[in-house]
Amino acid sequence: MDLNSDLGEAFGAWKMGDDEAMLDIVTSANVACGFHAGDPSVMRRVCELAAGRGVAIGAHVGYQDLAGFGRRALDIPPDELANEVLYQIGALDAFARAAGSRVTYVKPHGALYNTAAVDVEQAAAIVDGLRRYDPALALLCLPDSEMQRQAEKAGVVAYAEAFADRAYTSEGKLVSRREPGAVLHDASAVAERAVAMATGGGVVTADGGRLDLRPDSLCVHGDTPGAVELARRIRDGLTGADVPLGAFAG
Amino acid sequence: MDLNSDLGEAFGAWKMGDDEAMLDIVTSANVACGFHAGDPSVMRRVCELAAGRGVAIGAHVGYQDLAGFGRRALDIPPDELANEVLYQIGALDAFARAAGSRVTYVKPHGALYNTAAVDVEQAAAIVDGLRRYDPALALLCLPDSEMQRQAEKAGVVAYAEAFADRAYTSEGKLVSRREPGAVLHDASAVAERAVAMATGGGVVTADGGRLDLRPDSLCVHGDTPGAVELARRIRDGLTGADVPLGAFAG
Amino acid sequence: MDLNSDLGEAFGAWKMGDDEAMLDIVTSANVACGFHAGDPSVMRRVCELAAGRGVAIGAHVGYQDLAGFGRRALDIPPDELANEVLYQIGALDAFARAAGSRVTYVKPHGALYNTAAVDVEQAAAIVDGLRRYDPALALLCLPDSEMQRQAEKAGVVAYAEAFADRAYTSEGKLVSRREPGAVLHDASAVAERAVAMATGGGVVTADGGRLDLRPDSLCVHGDTPGAVELARRIRDGLTGADVPLGAFAG
Amino acid sequence: MDLNSDLGEAFGAWKMGDDEAMLDIVTSANVACGFHAGDPSVMRRVCELAAGRGVAIGAHVGYQDLAGFGRRALDIPPDELANEVLYQIGALDAFARAAGSRVTYVKPHGALYNTAAVDVEQAAAIVDGLRRYDPALALLCLPDSEMQRQAEKAGVVAYAEAFADRAYTSEGKLVSRREPGAVLHDASAVAERAVAMATGGGVVTADGGRLDLRPDSLCVHGDTPGAVELARRIRDGLTGADVPLGAFAG
Repeated sequence: MDLNSDLGEAFGAWKMGDDEAMLDIVTSANVACGFHAGDPSVMRRVCELAAGRGVAIGAHVGYQDLAGFGRRALDIPPDELANEVLYQIGALDAFARAAGSRVTYVKPHGALYNTAAVDVEQAAAIVDGLRRYDPALALLCLPDSEMQRQAEKAGVVAYAEAFADRAYTSEGKLVSRREPGAVLHDASAVAERAVAMATGGGVVTADGGRLDLRPDSLCVHGDTPGAVELARRIRDGLTGADVPLGAFAG
Repeated sequence: MDLNSDLGEAFGAWKMGDDEAMLDIVTSANVACGFHAGDPSVMRRVCELAAGRGVAIGAHVGYQDLAGFGRRALDIPPDELANEVLYQIGALDAFARAAGSRVTYVKPHGALYNTAAVDVEQAAAIVDGLRRYDPALALLCLPDSEMQRQAEKAGVVAYAEAFADRAYTSEGKLVSRREPGAVLHDASAVAERAVAMATGGGVVTADGGRLDLRPDSLCVHGDTPGAVELARRIRDGLTGADVPLGAFAG
Repeated sequence: MDLNSDLGEAFGAWKMGDDEAMLDIVTSANVACGFHAGDPSVMRRVCELAAGRGVAIGAHVGYQDLAGFGRRALDIPPDELANEVLYQIGALDAFARAAGSRVTYVKPHGALYNTAAVDVEQAAAIVDGLRRYDPALALLCLPDSEMQRQAEKAGVVAYAEAFADRAYTSEGKLVSRREPGAVLHDASAVAERAVAMATGGGVVTADGGRLDLRPDSLCVHGDTPGAVELARRIRDGLTGADVPLGAFAG
Repeated sequence: MDLNSDLGEAFGAWKMGDDEAMLDIVTSANVACGFHAGDPSVMRRVCELAAGRGVAIGAHVGYQDLAGFGRRALDIPPDELANEVLYQIGALDAFARAAGSRVTYVKPHGALYNTAAVDVEQAAAIVDGLRRYDPALALLCLPDSEMQRQAEKAGVVAYAEAFADRAYTSEGKLVSRREPGAVLHDASAVAERAVAMATGGGVVTADGGRLDLRPDSLCVHGDTPGAVELARRIRDGLTGADVPLGAFAG
């Protein structure tokens, strides 16, 4: 099983999360590329830390919107989006290679992730940008999403991620954060769900049913001290259950 | 002899120069990387046009200052500058490679060019960023500059450029644009100077002497209709004098 | 009748349109505030030119998106949008007042204009930002739009604009630019339509009917040489028909 | 005596300092205007909190350099700088007035503060921008600096600030942060120095002498939890010594 996390989200004088602590926990690092967060010096540092630990490096591509942290949907023409994705991958790969590693996958960030889950054009644009860089790159995405379909259509390998700390509907969708119970905070429960997800046990849905979920990667968060601790609990839960950890790509 | 020009300097809705016309004239294109000018869609287009014509692609790296077009000196720490240079090369190379070509050299832009001509730290930072990407990349720079010295010290090949339309002092410096006669506007005279520079004839200095100048490349401008025409005259002058044209790098 | 135009859309080294020529034609200048176009030095110049000619100054507020020139819809939370509108009005008014004039109205730009025409939340946010600056400011907008309704609901005076060079449907909507005939290019026909719009004659619709359109202002474009000439023809047509010209606000 | 602090330095998703805690301590808030830090929503919040507490609001104007937090010197032409200063004051005043207060002074930030302390042109440009907004605005600056001289020359009231936690040379300059002992960390000693500065006792210099320093304001920092506590100790020290606290301007 792979553990991925959004890292390198500092910008200039502003900090965010504890990249170094998280890089001791995850097996794949989604590294911001300067469009929604991150800057060249942050990218260098995270790539060097990741390369030193054997953590896979993915391009966490986002809308060009520092003010909104890439969380605001932007109605960008597909060809421009494909070019922006290509730009970001190339920039990050320069740091990954300088650190002795390389970018092995792409994961869209924030509003781009949400839009590309359902929007054919933006999903196809992401896959187009990825393929123009290197068709052997993988795409990390939501299962059963437009992103996944466009990747497969284009011959790009797509890996599906799941969230151990989020409630799921019986249809396999995430319960909206606006609903009560959408986010689980009990560390033991979250770690247990992670183990179940990783061992074929699926997940108990919000309405008490069971969903057959077989993710390739679990996404863990690291932007608060509590989040780092929760991520560590998930990792410990997996290793305690003898689930082998390793990057899906690279 | 090589002819280089600063291209891809449009940004979003704003145009600048006639990239396509210039790409029929030059043998090396200094392509803006989005920091002082250019955007992913402009970079894509210029790289595709250059690749289609066999024009060499160079990373025209600049300060991160769209508002000032990279023309304002910025007191950036050297390690940050090196990272910004690496970022820009990587981003541009993604487009160059997608177009079937690759970045073969680096040329600093505007205030970075001027600063790095005399500032050891910024010159070394540019060379450091270049080398971390690929030590086989060349540096296009002012002759007898700090940039040239830092490149040679680091084992990076430096090529020297000259300006056929600028007056030179007897010490080989450009006469400041604030001085009368700093810029030559007569097309025939400029074309003649270009031929002399390319054939070992050196250049007549502002005080009437002769300077032994043996550039690897001549820089031509393309941001006005008159400039395109002047560039064409220079090219015609060189081919008329049987000077073979070709990129210095790549 | 008022003639308004989008001005001050240069940015740094990049030019756009001929502000000075247009300021001899229009009675109201929609001045970009630095978010989608414009910068402090452009704002100063346009405000000084407008003030010197007695042209009314309006804040042409847009999404914070220089790369997209404010033409890409952005899903910004309404409270943030209201704050961004307030910021832009305040910044522009500093230049208007320094030039001896003041901002008398607000007009949203590009994708914000289109979104706020139909989106209650964004329309209300614009009006909220406007009112927090000065409830006596007017709003220049599309007739029968959400912007107009939200302005009136909040006690803000809304003025309606029309486009003499655009085809209208029988329901009073603009024909999409993707349709043939959406934009009229014949200067005489456009000038005639302008006079008809200004004298209560309404406009012939795309399907040959007649629409009763009584705009407070006509929007003219100035971003190409041909556009400036067309704007001059419209102005000449109006003065030739003895339509008094003057700003709706201020 | 006035206590001032740099506030509103968050940007989008990135936090910095504890504005609310500091606004219970200081009498003047230097509020970032979006050029080096801050955004419209941060500006609104800080202005509302400051207005509610009767804390004076100053425009903390900086270079347009979010990536460098305004800490990198930028060689900007004076007329552009004056326009950027005017822009920032106008934008912030919109929020100050909407909150029922107004901008009463200007303080340059970071590298602009350092440059304008010694550079005549940049100092004069700041004063020019200030005066074009409102010649009654005050300037908060380093004593015996070029900023102070340009302000006085232009008839602008300048107030001098001092730093209770910084070592001074016998010439009244701050000891460089690169020197040992440049920053004092002992809260009691800092509070004592603040009282001495506020009561005409001057300050003990790095070489053991005594400097006659009579500041109008003491600058306190709030970007770390420890800094907030130190600021509180300074305030408590001053009130314990019966030094009346109040804004110098407004």
